Amino acid sequence: MKKLTVGIAGAGRIGRIHAENLLGHAGARVKTVADLAPDRIRAWASGLSIPNVTADAGDIVADPEIDAILICSPTDTHTALIEQAARAGKAIFCEKPVSLDIGQTRQAVAAAERNGVLLQIGFNRRFDPSFSRARALVQAGEAGEPHIVSITSRDPAPPPSDYIRVSGGMFLDMTIHDFDMARFLCGSEVEAVHAEGAVLVDPAIGGLGDIDTAVTTLRFASGAIGVINNSRRAAYGFDQRAEVFGSKGSVAVRNEWPNTVEFSAGDGVRRDKPHYFFLERYSESYRLELDSFLDAVRNGMPAAVTGDDALRAERIAAAAKRSFAERRTVAIAEIETEIWQAG
Amino acid sequence: MKKLTVGIAGAGRIGRIHAENLLGHAGARVKTVADLAPDRIRAWASGLSIPNVTADAGDIVADPEIDAILICSPTDTHTALIEQAARAGKAIFCEKPVSLDIGQTRQAVAAAERNGVLLQIGFNRRFDPSFSRARALVQAGEAGEPHIVSITSRDPAPPPSDYIRVSGGMFLDMTIHDFDMARFLCGSEVEAVHAEGAVLVDPAIGGLGDIDTAVTTLRFASGAIGVINNSRRAAYGFDQRAEVFGSKGSVAVRNEWPNTVEFSAGDGVRRDKPHYFFLERYSESYRLELDSFLDAVRNGMPAAVTGDDALRAERIAAAAKRSFAERRTVAIAEIETEIWQAG
Amino acid sequence: MKKLTVGIAGAGRIGRIHAENLLGHAGARVKTVADLAPDRIRAWASGLSIPNVTADAGDIVADPEIDAILICSPTDTHTALIEQAARAGKAIFCEKPVSLDIGQTRQAVAAAERNGVLLQIGFNRRFDPSFSRARALVQAGEAGEPHIVSITSRDPAPPPSDYIRVSGGMFLDMTIHDFDMARFLCGSEVEAVHAEGAVLVDPAIGGLGDIDTAVTTLRFASGAIGVINNSRRAAYGFDQRAEVFGSKGSVAVRNEWPNTVEFSAGDGVRRDKPHYFFLERYSESYRLELDSFLDAVRNGMPAAVTGDDALRAERIAAAAKRSFAERRTVAIAEIETEIWQAG
Amino acid sequence: MKKLTVGIAGAGRIGRIHAENLLGHAGARVKTVADLAPDRIRAWASGLSIPNVTADAGDIVADPEIDAILICSPTDTHTALIEQAARAGKAIFCEKPVSLDIGQTRQAVAAAERNGVLLQIGFNRRFDPSFSRARALVQAGEAGEPHIVSITSRDPAPPPSDYIRVSGGMFLDMTIHDFDMARFLCGSEVEAVHAEGAVLVDPAIGGLGDIDTAVTTLRFASGAIGVINNSRRAAYGFDQRAEVFGSKGSVAVRNEWPNTVEFSAGDGVRRDKPHYFFLERYSESYRLELDSFLDAVRNGMPAAVTGDDALRAERIAAAAKRSFAERRTVAIAEIETEIWQAG
Repeated sequence: MKKLTVGIAGAGRIGRIHAENLLGHAGARVKTVADLAPDRIRAWASGLSIPNVTADAGDIVADPEIDAILICSPTDTHTALIEQAARAGKAIFCEKPVSLDIGQTRQAVAAAERNGVLLQIGFNRRFDPSFSRARALVQAGEAGEPHIVSITSRDPAPPPSDYIRVSGGMFLDMTIHDFDMARFLCGSEVEAVHAEGAVLVDPAIGGLGDIDTAVTTLRFASGAIGVINNSRRAAYGFDQRAEVFGSKGSVAVRNEWPNTVEFSAGDGVRRDKPHYFFLERYSESYRLELDSFLDAVRNGMPAAVTGDDALRAERIAAAAKRSFAERRTVAIAEIETEIWQAG
Repeated sequence: MKKLTVGIAGAGRIGRIHAENLLGHAGARVKTVADLAPDRIRAWASGLSIPNVTADAGDIVADPEIDAILICSPTDTHTALIEQAARAGKAIFCEKPVSLDIGQTRQAVAAAERNGVLLQIGFNRRFDPSFSRARALVQAGEAGEPHIVSITSRDPAPPPSDYIRVSGGMFLDMTIHDFDMARFLCGSEVEAVHAEGAVLVDPAIGGLGDIDTAVTTLRFASGAIGVINNSRRAAYGFDQRAEVFGSKGSVAVRNEWPNTVEFSAGDGVRRDKPHYFFLERYSESYRLELDSFLDAVRNGMPAAVTGDDALRAERIAAAAKRSFAERRTVAIAEIETEIWQAG
Repeated sequence: MKKLTVGIAGAGRIGRIHAENLLGHAGARVKTVADLAPDRIRAWASGLSIPNVTADAGDIVADPEIDAILICSPTDTHTALIEQAARAGKAIFCEKPVSLDIGQTRQAVAAAERNGVLLQIGFNRRFDPSFSRARALVQAGEAGEPHIVSITSRDPAPPPSDYIRVSGGMFLDMTIHDFDMARFLCGSEVEAVHAEGAVLVDPAIGGLGDIDTAVTTLRFASGAIGVINNSRRAAYGFDQRAEVFGSKGSVAVRNEWPNTVEFSAGDGVRRDKPHYFFLERYSESYRLELDSFLDAVRNGMPAAVTGDDALRAERIAAAAKRSFAERRTVAIAEIETEIWQAG
Repeated sequence: MKKLTVGIAGAGRIGRIHAENLLGHAGARVKTVADLAPDRIRAWASGLSIPNVTADAGDIVADPEIDAILICSPTDTHTALIEQAARAGKAIFCEKPVSLDIGQTRQAVAAAERNGVLLQIGFNRRFDPSFSRARALVQAGEAGEPHIVSITSRDPAPPPSDYIRVSGGMFLDMTIHDFDMARFLCGSEVEAVHAEGAVLVDPAIGGLGDIDTAVTTLRFASGAIGVINNSRRAAYGFDQRAEVFGSKGSVAVRNEWPNTVEFSAGDGVRRDKPHYFFLERYSESYRLELDSFLDAVRNGMPAAVTGDDALRAERIAAAAKRSFAERRTVAIAEIETEIWQAG
């Protein structure tokens, strides 16, 4: 089996994870990493035997030997890179969100389609062994028809103000994973959204016009109801749970722990906190999403997470944002119509 | 310690539970049970050494030896009995809901206050060892300021159509327990309600103008957000969970099981279902709520669950019903104003 | 259905539990309670509407109206009472151990057989919903052929020296429950015993010639191996677990808790301790063993726990005691032969 | 930081795991892999960019550039390789058991000491995050003085007869991990052993003079009691649990699962089986033990698991084997004296 040759745009936290997961991978090798601060990453790249480091992601796009690009650079660079890579015929893996503007996302997705290149979006949680097992059980009908899809998603600590400022807001930055998960688990499309939000964690977040606590209710086309509760700060770490409750039963995903030790003493029974954050909790999912991408590229199969999935999640996020702002239920059709008119 | 003398109006399922819990009780004895079908209950009452059986609850009210009445008869008899018993100076324990009409509930509560008698409402779940422990932890500040209060409350099977028809609807019949629990756990009052509902369990329920599946979002005065998910039918039994998530941590109540047996085999790990329904799950809470009532009567203390608690839960239910009907968020103040004007 | 008339010999902790469990029981009423300190129990008996209190258990035996006697008096009075009650034709329920001398136990059991009266032994744990469910799964073949039966049995605190002194030693006083449980769960008889013991909890126990910590290994006739670990003091409460591991899987019983609350915070996840001791952990089993006894009496069925069960558990305890003393594996046949020769 | 240069003797299952764990490792690179069937491993080695493949482990020993050797070849080659590598001044990591003959193990360990080279033994389970966390809690005194150390260790399926034949028997092949774990968790040395064994899984194992089911009791110098239960076949996968019960509480390690999904339905609550076997359950421990070895080499620190640890575990295994054969408790001192006399 010939190895695929891969370039990575952006060597921040997530770009490095992907590069390390490709080390000694049977199906791929990393040829080039692009980063705006190339000197910062040379030692790291050399330790991984990555041959090329560049400041210009264009070098990846222009390299005919490179089969696929992983776009891990800042969000505002995503759509331009997707369009360039699409024209160059590269297979594309892009981190979420594709952009903060649904119109731009739509154009980038269209560019990939037009050029016939594979585009996979980094909704990594779908590949987590627990969430993918839950989805498989639901798809196999074990829970019957879904009635209620409930997701708990809380971060251990809020991001810094500089991040919040350019994040697009909580719904687009954080809940977007949960919107995708809700669709993935329910197997039906969201038709309407009602969002309740608050600033309870950090007044600075409120000062930036954002919220840090939210409960979002979804109405699915199937009639099922979804509900997502979010917080930017859980004192005990990363809280990532979900439940699909249906006519035949309930499929639940619980948190994961760094160890299984239980300590019983005179003052009660204790265990350590769950995993701290996504790097620990979702490490396996990053490996598996890349395997899925590489398999799809090699076998000419559709992506497991498509541009359409990105667009749909972004639309739900836009509806949630508007619902909270206008204190009313917002139909997804409203957002679609506007995009269409704007496009 | 002199035993209190108790009369019970209504010897249905719940009236019998209370009578049995008073057997050999150090602090009370049952003198009279009233039931519209007295012949149906004579053998049962005799086995419990209850001296009197009558068809007329008025006999209890008129008996000067009786200190306290437990009102366990159908909902539409509650307020009249409360008013009679209040005038007779009896301590009153009344099952929930007090009535299907908030105005009537308000008058009954006022009658008890006017006559200076103790009135305790049967929100038994507050006395469940797990829910009361959760509340104690929250009150002690262990979870910090509550941010999100999440309740899962699902019955094992829907009631028959005859019951649905006179129940006042899902919010007033079933979710009312959860509205009370949300207030109890959060320690703050509900200001606004948004309800999403559906008919997914049984079309007959929809035919009666009711729903069987709901997700209700609450806004508390403290800024916290509440969310309750309900279903009339969980295939695996009675699902009664709650979580208070706050600035310092999370306090969670989980389901309870008839046994702890875990069976591991070649096809996975299994255990039996949770308790089937409220008689099994909340048996301890019925004992404890009665102990609390009797203690309050004896010591001249206020009731642990007051008429005001009944009124508040009924108002939230009314707001939820309207929110679902009108597809908008409804403020509790709307309901209060109307009652006031109507009163 | 005519109620059975019951007398209770001994109104200590366990005698009172049985009396309270019979309050308002559909199938039985308590007529007489005998206690060496009758004045101490009159108020309690009156609160339960028990008509007679006496200092002499002989009054129960002599009362022709009494159908059944519950023997809850000190161990050294058991065999004489069994023999008297047997001659009087009473059905007999006797707490464990029957005696501290296997020869005496054998004679008492024989007396019951000779007189054709029912004799049930108070191995209450068999009736615990979790242990009885585990046994049912094993009997149904779900675990396949048992290979290893493992029991953890630890008390929250050691008894006082005065109790230890007359207890017969840890194996006969405490582990005897586990010996019965091992037979019950495995469905095979014990053939040989190896006991390892130590004094680690309290030197005073060692000073009395007893031990407070033990690991006992059993060889069953089926070839299965049993292992029991005991301690007189678990800092976190009553630890009562068991596992039957077999050719097809494993059936495990876990501890039970006073509530299900889980508290997650910055320093970890906590819950309260398990139940403190047998009164809390096994309250249901006491109710159920009495129901079983009364059913057997009424229907002329054999006892669920027989005199033979008592004898077998006492023999295993004797073998364990000798194994520890002589630092060798002891066959049950050794003990049997000696009893036979002594008899 | 200069990378250490490593050679690996033996590219079976475990040698490959180590090689893959060193891919892109910041502190080491693999230069040479030796395997008796070098052609079988060339493609694999090339995919990992390992420069040299050889049939002769002597090439690793002779290579002056190589700092450390990982001995993953068959057990009967271990001691000769240790002695050669020790003379060549290499740091040595050797899989367990060092040999099937304690005298040979002693000589190999002595050779490493004499030549002043680091020797670490592959008791990988010590590095498992749960077991190492348990040990840390015990060492910190959280459980108080250990009283009972209980280990459950069951494989999912027995090895083939060809493996059993050269394995040294269950105690030396399988339980040896548990003997090491018991010492590790208890923090005290074993003084005496009593083993009960049976052939319940596969008569073929009995035909080879071995057993497949065992319960082994240990007496520690501290007075604590240890107990290990083993089976060669658990229908539900790899069962690896442990508990240290002490004067202040209990520290327990539970099984680990491939996912956290819980499925509740009308016939009960289910989850998937635990991890199938050691490759899944202990994958993290293999990474961490190698990191520990490399750190020790680089910093001139003692090994985390020493030759003495290997010797002590082998002695306990020999005592267990004799205890089972002779049906008596065997003191470790017996084994030590014989080795000494034989040496």
